[in-house]
Amino acid sequence: MSSTGHEQHAMRRALELAATPGVPLHPNPRVGCVLLAPDGTVVAEGHHRGAGTPHAEADALARAGGAARGSTAVVTLEPCDHTGRTGPCSRALVEAGVRRVVLAQRDPNPLAAGGVATLRAAGVEVETGLLEAEARELNRVWSFAVERGRPFVTWKLATTIDGRSAAADGTSRWVSGTASRRDTHRLRALADTMLVGTGTVAVDDPLLTVRDAEDRPLPRQPLRVVMGERDLDPRRRVLQPVEGVLDAPTLHLRTRDPREALAALAARERRHVFLEGGPTLAAAFLAAGLVDEVVAYVAPFFLGAGHAAVADLGIRTISDAWRPQVTDVTVLEPVVAGEQPDVRFTLVPHAQPIPTTRGDA
Amino acid sequence: MSSTGHEQHAMRRALELAATPGVPLHPNPRVGCVLLAPDGTVVAEGHHRGAGTPHAEADALARAGGAARGSTAVVTLEPCDHTGRTGPCSRALVEAGVRRVVLAQRDPNPLAAGGVATLRAAGVEVETGLLEAEARELNRVWSFAVERGRPFVTWKLATTIDGRSAAADGTSRWVSGTASRRDTHRLRALADTMLVGTGTVAVDDPLLTVRDAEDRPLPRQPLRVVMGERDLDPRRRVLQPVEGVLDAPTLHLRTRDPREALAALAARERRHVFLEGGPTLAAAFLAAGLVDEVVAYVAPFFLGAGHAAVADLGIRTISDAWRPQVTDVTVLEPVVAGEQPDVRFTLVPHAQPIPTTRGDA
Repeated sequence: MSSTGHEQHAMRRALELAATPGVPLHPNPRVGCVLLAPDGTVVAEGHHRGAGTPHAEADALARAGGAARGSTAVVTLEPCDHTGRTGPCSRALVEAGVRRVVLAQRDPNPLAAGGVATLRAAGVEVETGLLEAEARELNRVWSFAVERGRPFVTWKLATTIDGRSAAADGTSRWVSGTASRRDTHRLRALADTMLVGTGTVAVDDPLLTVRDAEDRPLPRQPLRVVMGERDLDPRRRVLQPVEGVLDAPTLHLRTRDPREALAALAARERRHVFLEGGPTLAAAFLAAGLVDEVVAYVAPFFLGAGHAAVADLGIRTISDAWRPQVTDVTVLEPVVAGEQPDVRFTLVPHAQPIPTTRGDA
Repeated sequence: MSSTGHEQHAMRRALELAATPGVPLHPNPRVGCVLLAPDGTVVAEGHHRGAGTPHAEADALARAGGAARGSTAVVTLEPCDHTGRTGPCSRALVEAGVRRVVLAQRDPNPLAAGGVATLRAAGVEVETGLLEAEARELNRVWSFAVERGRPFVTWKLATTIDGRSAAADGTSRWVSGTASRRDTHRLRALADTMLVGTGTVAVDDPLLTVRDAEDRPLPRQPLRVVMGERDLDPRRRVLQPVEGVLDAPTLHLRTRDPREALAALAARERRHVFLEGGPTLAAAFLAAGLVDEVVAYVAPFFLGAGHAAVADLGIRTISDAWRPQVTDVTVLEPVVAGEQPDVRFTLVPHAQPIPTTRGDA
């Protein structure tokens, strides 16, 4: 039996619930759930609010109480089958007397998968794949990280039209306009980890925080990570607590190997690294094929000289240029009078690694 | 007496006539004219089609014949008062018995001005300034060139996101996509002069022609100009005739001084120079404050190394960056499958010259 119109409608609602803004989910996926009575009316809704809180199914079951018996659970991700911070949802659905489960995406996490088998073994009717593409898109980064066993890496750079990230004397505040800087904070907030090299900390001394439009730090901050073998000056701002933020830890990964760094972050359940510099660190990730998305802000002015925004990638001739696929181009209109519009390119590499070694052409 | 509704309507029509596409106008302005009978009906229309052909007023008067007597001439530019390739329009209007003249823009060309005085002296009622801003915009480049006594200079550059105009081995075909290259040809066709340095001719050997979307040269070509003291190899493509084009001359200006080059071009009645390279030549124009418009194509890919799209401008610190005003940002969607969108920035310098000398910061 395929899904009914009621179920399709409920799945769209479950996707909406899953996408509830502001929910701190790290390191878990976004999940929504709607319980339907046999006549198609909604019994209860639920969604996941982050690690340590109930899963979406448990949230909906708690709201439904006894009314869950005989219902259909419409859920955006395969119910988990393991006991982690919470009990397995597959068992909870069976015990609540749910008759049928309609789900969108199978769980790519081998630790959590198995829910479908458990449900079917208990006699629950299960249908999979309803609005699967939408559900995957919702947890695009999480699915990638779980499937690959390493965090998804977004490399962000800001450059002038002539490809400079700083002037000859090293000054770089600001290359991008206010609109771009706010946009960067919005994107940082979507990640659970911000990563820079020891060189950037030494030269730019960034705070590496996520701030709102009024420049106040958000109450929840991604993990601040500095990578590289050099010692860090303990007075650097990235090592200080952030005012108004309870939990703003900083991790120093003493390695120059991007693969090793990502493994260390994966072990800490980090799903999404926002890589901000400098050019040498970015080049190392590019050479290792470990950049999964590029966000490039181009500011419409000229320096003529100064620091190149992108380091030497070993490319000698135009036909070897690195040409990731453009997925979006957005003009960021100024939010402050007198500023100019920047352009943001979003690109995804696809089966086209940076050449790692190459002789002269 | 101010202009009537009929006259305002006629001026909009005259502006439309002036903007008739495809008219080869160099070195003259675009001009349109509508003759109105006393009851506001249109007696005749005319527009200028280029040097050596009748002016817009003469064109309209010829079409009107005796019906011009007692009419009002609505014209986008002050009727000329001098005998050049054609006789003075001021006299022609008087002789045809035109009773009243409504014009948009006064003539900025001191050689041609005086029409209003002649008309008034002959008893013709004259009103000026109707839709003047629109008329000035129509002849923006021409007005600039006539007022300043030198051609308007558009500097065009094409760069990767990381500010490269060519790879390390010098290859540069192509940095921009097909859509950008076609757009460049469209803009070249609006200019009357294309300018490159001897270095670009030596390295890139450009044709420096304007071609259509099928890569065929247009029948009328801007003047090709090569600037610099170096001798030119007579086998270079820029020195060859262009197939299918009767008149495709090339001029070698043996100077490194942008001011001197523009004076030489002004003496040849050139109004609009399209400056395409290389970076050193562009830097010389920038340093001299002789770039009036920048058209920058940014292509969304990476070279990491190679030739900088913009030469050293003497800028040492970010607060001295050259920040012309952005007048347009356009995403150029691919016209060929598999290509990527480029972005075109249009910028105008405004009272902010490039620093010419500057010590270390």
